[in-house]
Amino acid sequence: MASLLRTASRTPPSLNRSLARTTRIAPVALPRRHASSTASNGSQPFFPDEPAAPIVQTEIPGPKSKTAIERLQKVFDTRSLNMMADYSRSYGNYIADLDGNVLLDVYAQIASIPVGYNNPTLQLAATSPEMASAIINRPALGNFPQHDWADILETGILSVAPKGLDQVFTGQSGSDANELAYKAAFMWKRQQQRGGANVDFTEQEIASSMVNQSPGAPDLSIMSFKSGFHGRLFGSLSTTRSKPIHKLDIPAFDWPQAPFPVLQYPLDQFATENAAEEQRCLAETERLITEWHAPPAAMVIEPIQSEGGDNHASPTFFRGLRALATKHDILFIVDEVQTGVGATGKFWAHEHWGLDTPPDMVTFSKKAQTAGYYFGNNDLRPNKPYRQFNTWMGDPARAILFRAIIHEINRLDLVRSTAATGAYLHDGLARLADKFPGEIQNLRGKGQGTFIAWDSDRRDEVLRKAKGVGVNIGGSGERAVRLRPMLVFQKHHADLLLERLEAIFKS
Amino acid sequence: MASLLRTASRTPPSLNRSLARTTRIAPVALPRRHASSTASNGSQPFFPDEPAAPIVQTEIPGPKSKTAIERLQKVFDTRSLNMMADYSRSYGNYIADLDGNVLLDVYAQIASIPVGYNNPTLQLAATSPEMASAIINRPALGNFPQHDWADILETGILSVAPKGLDQVFTGQSGSDANELAYKAAFMWKRQQQRGGANVDFTEQEIASSMVNQSPGAPDLSIMSFKSGFHGRLFGSLSTTRSKPIHKLDIPAFDWPQAPFPVLQYPLDQFATENAAEEQRCLAETERLITEWHAPPAAMVIEPIQSEGGDNHASPTFFRGLRALATKHDILFIVDEVQTGVGATGKFWAHEHWGLDTPPDMVTFSKKAQTAGYYFGNNDLRPNKPYRQFNTWMGDPARAILFRAIIHEINRLDLVRSTAATGAYLHDGLARLADKFPGEIQNLRGKGQGTFIAWDSDRRDEVLRKAKGVGVNIGGSGERAVRLRPMLVFQKHHADLLLERLEAIFKS
Repeated sequence: MASLLRTASRTPPSLNRSLARTTRIAPVALPRRHASSTASNGSQPFFPDEPAAPIVQTEIPGPKSKTAIERLQKVFDTRSLNMMADYSRSYGNYIADLDGNVLLDVYAQIASIPVGYNNPTLQLAATSPEMASAIINRPALGNFPQHDWADILETGILSVAPKGLDQVFTGQSGSDANELAYKAAFMWKRQQQRGGANVDFTEQEIASSMVNQSPGAPDLSIMSFKSGFHGRLFGSLSTTRSKPIHKLDIPAFDWPQAPFPVLQYPLDQFATENAAEEQRCLAETERLITEWHAPPAAMVIEPIQSEGGDNHASPTFFRGLRALATKHDILFIVDEVQTGVGATGKFWAHEHWGLDTPPDMVTFSKKAQTAGYYFGNNDLRPNKPYRQFNTWMGDPARAILFRAIIHEINRLDLVRSTAATGAYLHDGLARLADKFPGEIQNLRGKGQGTFIAWDSDRRDEVLRKAKGVGVNIGGSGERAVRLRPMLVFQKHHADLLLERLEAIFKS
Repeated sequence: MASLLRTASRTPPSLNRSLARTTRIAPVALPRRHASSTASNGSQPFFPDEPAAPIVQTEIPGPKSKTAIERLQKVFDTRSLNMMADYSRSYGNYIADLDGNVLLDVYAQIASIPVGYNNPTLQLAATSPEMASAIINRPALGNFPQHDWADILETGILSVAPKGLDQVFTGQSGSDANELAYKAAFMWKRQQQRGGANVDFTEQEIASSMVNQSPGAPDLSIMSFKSGFHGRLFGSLSTTRSKPIHKLDIPAFDWPQAPFPVLQYPLDQFATENAAEEQRCLAETERLITEWHAPPAAMVIEPIQSEGGDNHASPTFFRGLRALATKHDILFIVDEVQTGVGATGKFWAHEHWGLDTPPDMVTFSKKAQTAGYYFGNNDLRPNKPYRQFNTWMGDPARAILFRAIIHEINRLDLVRSTAATGAYLHDGLARLADKFPGEIQNLRGKGQGTFIAWDSDRRDEVLRKAKGVGVNIGGSGERAVRLRPMLVFQKHHADLLLERLEAIFKS
């Protein structure tokens, strides 16, 4: 840590020099900033030793990165590589590379870094004897859990369980979490159809299951929504509807796709049209539940469709879905893999909906740095052991890390901070949208923390230029710019981001 | 570490006392052993401070474990719990619990602990600054790999790549590794059908993929073998054919199941019958490849069917499968999730086959403590980026650990040691089988390191009694006892195991 902090504070924020060296992209004029202005809007910085501003010393990738990428390419597919990082020199909101570039990171490993690179609190957790044991003595959790597993869960993962959900099944990735939830839903639904937990499987079910045929392998489905993303394993990919590149050439289950509302912006100008659109989607959803040839055991939905382009719907719509699920006796699974853990200004995004009845399952991953699903209903524990099971069932090392993340979020009050920073950032973006209406279209995410996005006709160019001025931003869907900063992103970072966006728009 | 070593060496190997306290199970008479005899057969112990013998102080679970299990049960399904462990007191080949019991562990977290609990070499790797960074700065490897990712792969995972395979795609679990391999196979096969990497997707493919229909979601399959196990996610579960409890109530793809040879033992007495059985299975496999309504893009097989009951086939059979795959232009995927990393006396079990052409992909997990698949053919890199992709694409922390495991295996020559210990153990079991033919039926795994199993009509009772005399053993299939000791299991451990088995058989 010590050497890293020295490195970070030693590096001069020499933006002018760095911009002059950005050879690939036409220079963008930026206002001069000084280190002393970084926290000028009043909030105390969570990382006082962060660079005062991004540092761009070479084109990206620079020469050292190019050499490293060439080497990696021989053994590992690098065609999706965005930037080769040097994490030993990354700190807080800033990601560093091998060529001396240090970028403000508002993409954060596809929304997965919660509390900053090399966060000192996490560093302590990562170097604890407990962590070392979890790394080297990895248990098969279902068979041989460690004696303090209940404690790790209760003081960590379960301490932030969504209201109404008090149990957890741990997994390893967002896709995995969703598939485990789907399996729980299928077992629950078949148990219900069979007449309860005490009714045993028939001989026919047992025999047919082994040859992948109904009724043992039932003709049931999981309903998902157009443009949704739920992962890329075979079951989760069958519910993913974001882009063809995710799905082409992969066999899929014939499961139903309900429409997701396509809202018009600004919301206050299209209130009537948007309400009608949501009603249309609810009606079609109900039709599919009752008429699809393979009836759904559950529906799965993201609070904000993230990979699909940051598509929002109103709390009314989500409450409507919850009601439909209850009415037709199917489960309501909320996929909070990308929205969860604070980024929307609530710990879980579905808290914005004001549900009377909680979701049946909530899945998590990404910022949790581990994965799994929460549930509250004992009937979602299958009627026999070993039905929901695998060797590792998660990773205690990652569960211990999530506990440290939760403590850091609480210590710094990061969910509230994110709500405030998000409001400030959204205001700034709204001003920019007024000034550059062609550049920021359909600005969305108001009141949703820093979970903000907009559409752009030259999205890929904007993302490229952003790197040239020291900001790492991601896209989603066909033409959305999505902001996914960490929970330690503050108003002074928002200022840096807004200035740079304005400079790009002017260029 | 220090306190743990003290604890281990301080504990007296007071077997007589411990057996007297084993209240659930009728006492089993054991020969007296002394600490000094632990390495009496000549080999130097890898863990000199291990207990000299198992220690059983209470019934298992004992009172403290019962309390802990009760607490865990409220938030986490414990019905598959075998034993609650205290890893801080586990060491080498011995697993400890909360009640002072320390068992010789020949199950090793379902074959997943490679080089002993609290292995000092792994402890060093786990407490390195590199590991801490990997834990707290987890990258999205496909987008933002760390600058030393090539080095970590080349000096670790790729340094043990099977012959002919020089690239890797990293994942998180065995199921995940298999599904990633299946996806690579489907993309490869469709590319071939389409006419090469440069032929673009049709509009029809793009549109149909988004609604889970052919041709975009093609009617292709993965062929697997009866009694095989390849995981429990939706695609991998569709290839799993081990037990109904794994499959019941979960929708599955209509993929073909080829027969796996059912060999008769002892092998030398049934050479003709077994050869005919294997020929029958090869013929039926070829028929399915050519006639199944959804043609296979690949076949997947375990070198030894592990979860399905430790079913073996001869190298001739596997060479026959490789030839069939080549002849019919489908891929040959070898699932080494359980057999890989040394346990069979070769680093990869398929090295026993003497293949002329390597497998197209080899999947790994478990003892590697990370997961993924190896491949050698550049055509298995999809023709566009982001087709084979997910957020994390593995975990550098686990890749760093695997590198340390590989170094430890090399340092102690553990693959050769396992081959020798396995031969010694098999001889001892063969003698026991002669003496107790009803207890040890169909002994198998000769020449396969410590990857040994047998059938037993009272399997579950034997496993229960084994705990009572201080040995943790696992089962598989309907009635197999499977041994899955670590690579640091030595002849003096084999002696302890054989003595205890004999005592159980006599009881």
